[in-house]
Amino acid sequence: MNLETIQDPGFMKQYNDKELKALGEDIRAFLIEKLSVTGGHLGPNLGVVELTLTLHQLYDTPKDKLIWDVGHQSYVHKILTGRADRFDSLRQYQGLCGFPKRSESEHDVWETGHSSTSLSAAEGMALANQLKGGDSKVAAIIGDGALTGGMALEALNHIGHEQTDLTIILNDNEMSISPNVGALHSMLGRIRTAGTYRRTKEDVDHMLRRIPAFGSKLASYADRMKDSMKQMVLSGMFFEELGFTYLGPVDGHDLDDLHANIKYARDTNGPVIVHVLSKKGKGYTPAENDAKGTWHGLGPYKIESGEVIKKPAAAPAYSAVFSNTLQKIAEMDPRLVAVTAAMSGGTKLDTFAEKFPDRMFDVGIAEQHATTMSGALATQGMKPVFGVYSTFLQRGYDQLVHDVCRQNLNVLFGIDRAGLVGADGETHQGVFDIAYLRHLPNMKILMPKDENELQHMLYSAFHNDDGPTAVRYPRGNGLGVEMDEEFQLIPYGKWEIVREGTDCTILSFGTMLPIVEEAAAVLSERGTSVRIVNARSAKPLDDEMLEELAEEGKPVLTVEEAALKGSFGSAVLEYMADHEHDSLSVRRMGIADYYVEHGSVPELYEELGLTSEKVVEKVMAMTSKERTNIRG
Amino acid sequence: MNLETIQDPGFMKQYNDKELKALGEDIRAFLIEKLSVTGGHLGPNLGVVELTLTLHQLYDTPKDKLIWDVGHQSYVHKILTGRADRFDSLRQYQGLCGFPKRSESEHDVWETGHSSTSLSAAEGMALANQLKGGDSKVAAIIGDGALTGGMALEALNHIGHEQTDLTIILNDNEMSISPNVGALHSMLGRIRTAGTYRRTKEDVDHMLRRIPAFGSKLASYADRMKDSMKQMVLSGMFFEELGFTYLGPVDGHDLDDLHANIKYARDTNGPVIVHVLSKKGKGYTPAENDAKGTWHGLGPYKIESGEVIKKPAAAPAYSAVFSNTLQKIAEMDPRLVAVTAAMSGGTKLDTFAEKFPDRMFDVGIAEQHATTMSGALATQGMKPVFGVYSTFLQRGYDQLVHDVCRQNLNVLFGIDRAGLVGADGETHQGVFDIAYLRHLPNMKILMPKDENELQHMLYSAFHNDDGPTAVRYPRGNGLGVEMDEEFQLIPYGKWEIVREGTDCTILSFGTMLPIVEEAAAVLSERGTSVRIVNARSAKPLDDEMLEELAEEGKPVLTVEEAALKGSFGSAVLEYMADHEHDSLSVRRMGIADYYVEHGSVPELYEELGLTSEKVVEKVMAMTSKERTNIRG
Repeated sequence: MNLETIQDPGFMKQYNDKELKALGEDIRAFLIEKLSVTGGHLGPNLGVVELTLTLHQLYDTPKDKLIWDVGHQSYVHKILTGRADRFDSLRQYQGLCGFPKRSESEHDVWETGHSSTSLSAAEGMALANQLKGGDSKVAAIIGDGALTGGMALEALNHIGHEQTDLTIILNDNEMSISPNVGALHSMLGRIRTAGTYRRTKEDVDHMLRRIPAFGSKLASYADRMKDSMKQMVLSGMFFEELGFTYLGPVDGHDLDDLHANIKYARDTNGPVIVHVLSKKGKGYTPAENDAKGTWHGLGPYKIESGEVIKKPAAAPAYSAVFSNTLQKIAEMDPRLVAVTAAMSGGTKLDTFAEKFPDRMFDVGIAEQHATTMSGALATQGMKPVFGVYSTFLQRGYDQLVHDVCRQNLNVLFGIDRAGLVGADGETHQGVFDIAYLRHLPNMKILMPKDENELQHMLYSAFHNDDGPTAVRYPRGNGLGVEMDEEFQLIPYGKWEIVREGTDCTILSFGTMLPIVEEAAAVLSERGTSVRIVNARSAKPLDDEMLEELAEEGKPVLTVEEAALKGSFGSAVLEYMADHEHDSLSVRRMGIADYYVEHGSVPELYEELGLTSEKVVEKVMAMTSKERTNIRG
Repeated sequence: MNLETIQDPGFMKQYNDKELKALGEDIRAFLIEKLSVTGGHLGPNLGVVELTLTLHQLYDTPKDKLIWDVGHQSYVHKILTGRADRFDSLRQYQGLCGFPKRSESEHDVWETGHSSTSLSAAEGMALANQLKGGDSKVAAIIGDGALTGGMALEALNHIGHEQTDLTIILNDNEMSISPNVGALHSMLGRIRTAGTYRRTKEDVDHMLRRIPAFGSKLASYADRMKDSMKQMVLSGMFFEELGFTYLGPVDGHDLDDLHANIKYARDTNGPVIVHVLSKKGKGYTPAENDAKGTWHGLGPYKIESGEVIKKPAAAPAYSAVFSNTLQKIAEMDPRLVAVTAAMSGGTKLDTFAEKFPDRMFDVGIAEQHATTMSGALATQGMKPVFGVYSTFLQRGYDQLVHDVCRQNLNVLFGIDRAGLVGADGETHQGVFDIAYLRHLPNMKILMPKDENELQHMLYSAFHNDDGPTAVRYPRGNGLGVEMDEEFQLIPYGKWEIVREGTDCTILSFGTMLPIVEEAAAVLSERGTSVRIVNARSAKPLDDEMLEELAEEGKPVLTVEEAALKGSFGSAVLEYMADHEHDSLSVRRMGIADYYVEHGSVPELYEELGLTSEKVVEKVMAMTSKERTNIRG
């Protein structure tokens, strides 16, 4: 069928098995085709085609609530709720969002992006329904990886206690973004390999009755129980201990099996977990055979060959420079250990792990644990480096405050994806880290101007023994500058003048430098002479240089790729006020006080006014005011 | 014995049972006596006397590492490690800290205060030991309440996966600060009531063999297993599923039982959980019979009668005003629901729960879940109010960023213990919330000048339908002002002039007003006329008033009880710079960039320079400069 004619899921409520199957095939073909052009999360969505069809047959959205954990697996849901016609704009500026979005559809009742939030959301909605005496059904769809996030476990505990009427679909596809780690995963693995699909408790009892010798040898019973029984009967015990009814495992690509179990779950009182086994990339061979996670989320590809279309990179990715630098340091210094929270691929720490398998810890989606564990490693003289996306370290904020910074421990945070990230949008923009780190006593915050400076900064931070340092760097590739062979020590709190000028000074934090340099060139042609400073340290500031600037009295402009409230620019304002340098013009450019949606980084720069043209305008206004003042 | 002569735990390593018991009794008497004067966490420490004695017999600190979760139960440990002589200064300014403190003793290897961090700490230390080829043993002591915190579960998952050699002592005393909630707690409860103390797996097998009819009736087996078996044999299954060896339950006041099990755990490879059942307040009748948590942490008391010595309060506590206000609103509006994370006593929401048991959710120590669940309740038209300490909401930071603020949901945060908290010290000071909230798009931040304004602010925030609001208020009692009968609507972003003046303006945020008023009176006598503004909204600011102040051009001083970086004062600086109001003197008073230790709030004000004298000095300096400028 023509999927673009779908308005809402009503049309397929009464579909029979054959019709549903055909619809599923249409959806698969549609996704494979559309995403070959736009890119997107192909693997996860191919894995939930049958599951999503079943959910929309059984649940009456928007009255009933479907909550997609992480949310990148919501494409099939988007198609069934009338958005197929917008897939050409997927994850593009002002186009269809890659995650559930309430403004797109009344069928999207909860927005996600970060993992492990869906159970708390489901609990809140189900409790509200209960309080209002409504008859809405609630289901959360969560992957096995997301289940390791602490807040998911907090929610399981609370839901089990409240015995709230809701269903959790545990979509077990053996892979979060990186291969999953953790004991929970092993447990799910044991269930998988049991080889017996079970439906409901009645079936289990029935099965038990058919095992003739069962229970005859008591002495060995406990052992046997711990091995085979644990797999066969007790596989759901973990969840049952927490107060859930456990159903499964269910074949995630068998519509009958899905329908029977999810219907049973929907109609059962209290909390139910349906354990669904699915295959990421199902139905598209290159994605099915994906061991490395390439097809999880990717750019355009050739459908026939499964060849990923990659533009040749002019420069190494910042993440690669991060990992390579750690590897070089690790060879020299046995104290370096790397930590990641299910992001070994994205942070490129996978290459570190290949070289130093014993010195790399992937803790799963568990940023709180990763942060505090890194602190503890530091207390014993190790030198942990936690490679983490800016937006995900938000999960470790209290652990930064309470454990690492308070005890002033030598942990190095490699903050990847700092600044705008592009297509992942709102939930993934790394724009708050300066604001959430700067007020923490003992924390140091650095950002390099290019990939060469990144390696020196990491090296310098590694050798700083005065507590924690955060080195933030952006998503994507470096500028293509030459990489020095030898590491250099960059002193903290010393900025670098990269261009001399006399009319005003621009303090550029990190990656804004090319834009600032472009602006300075234009301004120079117009007769305005701009000094440019690579203000590579937001904490500590370069007090000496700030004193000189105050003394000089020329206007100062700060430029950064971060939320302006509490930002690097604010630090400069605070310094000037606290040191009684009044009557100095300080202006700030950065990210305004709203959540920035998806789009290419240049498009977002344009929207936010982070362009060389805007820098030129700002400087013209500042210096003309200055000139007026002098005249006046 | 005279406990004050103890230097380190060496003396009791070879103590026999009788000697240990006597020592335990001495310690109990010492604690009951000392704390009757200083106050402190009596109940938790009386509960771990035998446990701590056993740990110090079996572990060789500081080579071996003992990590106390939360840490308020470390008094016995402090006594055994040579600090008995400092107990007169417990929790007092520059005195003995109420939590483990590395600067106090080499036996304190990890500092705590917030819950649920100990497992991550233990994992980090054990991994470091493994990497260095050392032979340190590591044990974490964690309560059943702390186990519900997401990061503890993240750590369990990772430890189970790594199979790290460490021991977790689960100190199950049926009570965190409030009575525990949650499915985990129910599970532990089932184990408790099983009535059979078990030692090791061998014992279990042995026990099983003695049940004659076991396994004979297969049909009913599954049922029986789920009831009695679950309690008897499978009680540790939850932990075993995660890869732990489970020992227990162990009688936490039986030295033999403790010794045998903890020794076995210490010498077993891989991760082991020892489930210890103890009684808070053990050995002191008033504390043992404590149902309300009074004896968890308290001020001075009379030893004989167990009567808590309370100064008569001149005014209601801010927390009580918070809870009472919610109750009044809840009577009028069925949409109000209250949420707490194991703090129903501290936030006074216990009285709300008595009146509205169905509209109050205590989720356990689970601030992440509480924050997001509140957001989800709001999506369904409910009006959730999350009562939470400033320092504990740090755990919900990502959920604020990603769930509540991003989706602009109508959640009201009652931020208790905002500002300095006194005796709990560093880990509990509520000084970061302005900085961690202000940069979040859509968030509003209010603080009242007194308890009467608090009720109006809560009422106003409840009726604001434009997304989240945080109303912060301090620990302790109000000012004793009259409470209005009728609620008033306070518009956001409108400050209140409480005193007119012509030489300068002080923008006082929240509770600093009395100090500022005192200063203004002194200044007035000295001929300086100060305008005082109750700047009750840190976000949004009162733009109109700021424009007037800029126009007027007189110096402005901001005063707040919060970390200065990224603070309310910074917001004023940002406003002035971003609106091109240069050459205006703005000065800021608040909390400098370090972690503030314990002490009474007035002592800490003195240390931090948050006194009326300092306000006077500051204003004199500002206005004299002003006068010089005018003259010059």
